[in-house]
Amino acid sequence: MTQEELNALPGVTGSPEAFTQDYVFNHTMLRVKDIEKSLDFYTRILGFTLLEVSRHPDAEFDLYFLALIKDKAQIPTDAKARHQWRKSIPGIVELTYNYGTEKDLEFAYHNGNSDPRGFGHLCVSVPDIKAACERFEALGVDFQKRLTDGRMRSIAFIKDPDAYWVEIIQFTEVE
Amino acid sequence: MTQEELNALPGVTGSPEAFTQDYVFNHTMLRVKDIEKSLDFYTRILGFTLLEVSRHPDAEFDLYFLALIKDKAQIPTDAKARHQWRKSIPGIVELTYNYGTEKDLEFAYHNGNSDPRGFGHLCVSVPDIKAACERFEALGVDFQKRLTDGRMRSIAFIKDPDAYWVEIIQFTEVE
Repeated sequence: MTQEELNALPGVTGSPEAFTQDYVFNHTMLRVKDIEKSLDFYTRILGFTLLEVSRHPDAEFDLYFLALIKDKAQIPTDAKARHQWRKSIPGIVELTYNYGTEKDLEFAYHNGNSDPRGFGHLCVSVPDIKAACERFEALGVDFQKRLTDGRMRSIAFIKDPDAYWVEIIQFTEVE
Repeated sequence: MTQEELNALPGVTGSPEAFTQDYVFNHTMLRVKDIEKSLDFYTRILGFTLLEVSRHPDAEFDLYFLALIKDKAQIPTDAKARHQWRKSIPGIVELTYNYGTEKDLEFAYHNGNSDPRGFGHLCVSVPDIKAACERFEALGVDFQKRLTDGRMRSIAFIKDPDAYWVEIIQFTEVE
């Protein structure tokens, strides 16, 4: 479809008010049971950088803000400047950790892909999906769908420690 | 906290493998009941641009990819180039529409904020949150939390047509 055809689909406003021009889709928030496991997954396995932590001990929860930053030199070193910058860029994951959930063996969050459904997945795009999936296998990551499963051979789904699905796609042209 | 302190928190890998350096947090997928209402909300109210539609009539679902693009001139006009580019940038919302759900009066997706909880919200960051919220009021948008509700006076939450929460924050310094 051309951009003109997309802009003409029912419901679509092709030229939104200039008022919204600087709006940024900043983040997606997920609740996680065991913050240490989640931080390990998002930083070590996927390469996210932890940019900010906001602690709320009175209400017994903490918020963790992470992003995939290609050029780490652009991350402000000053904490206040980093906070403002963190609110201005797209591609942030916010993890909410409610104190003590990791100690409750029965406790589990809902990943949205069984009833009641809603949220589906996050997606991380990589330069070489085959190499990325081989590395995930070597690191013992759980797969929801391997490249070789099903009909769609150009995408995979891995699972984070709360079983939230993370789709893996390739941003370079697939051979 | 300094970046060094963040990198030293339990679970955090402060220097992920170079292998992950080009990874991009590309999108968040949400299922929506009535695609026309959702496209109206994300394009007219929030200013998103619809970049791509992927139709799967055999399996009776379509996928819609939208983003907040400040400089619309950077959107490739060629559909194939736009597809590759769309997979390479952060900040995409993917809406999954399963055919016919809008005709079922009883049908509703789960927004993750009542049991069973999990996904929390999307967040859009704006230059002037007071002006943004006044415009949402004028446009008849549903609020989950107005700026004046509760203790946190610098954030608001609006609701999309499926009642998914969209947090509104301000990326410029709050006065």
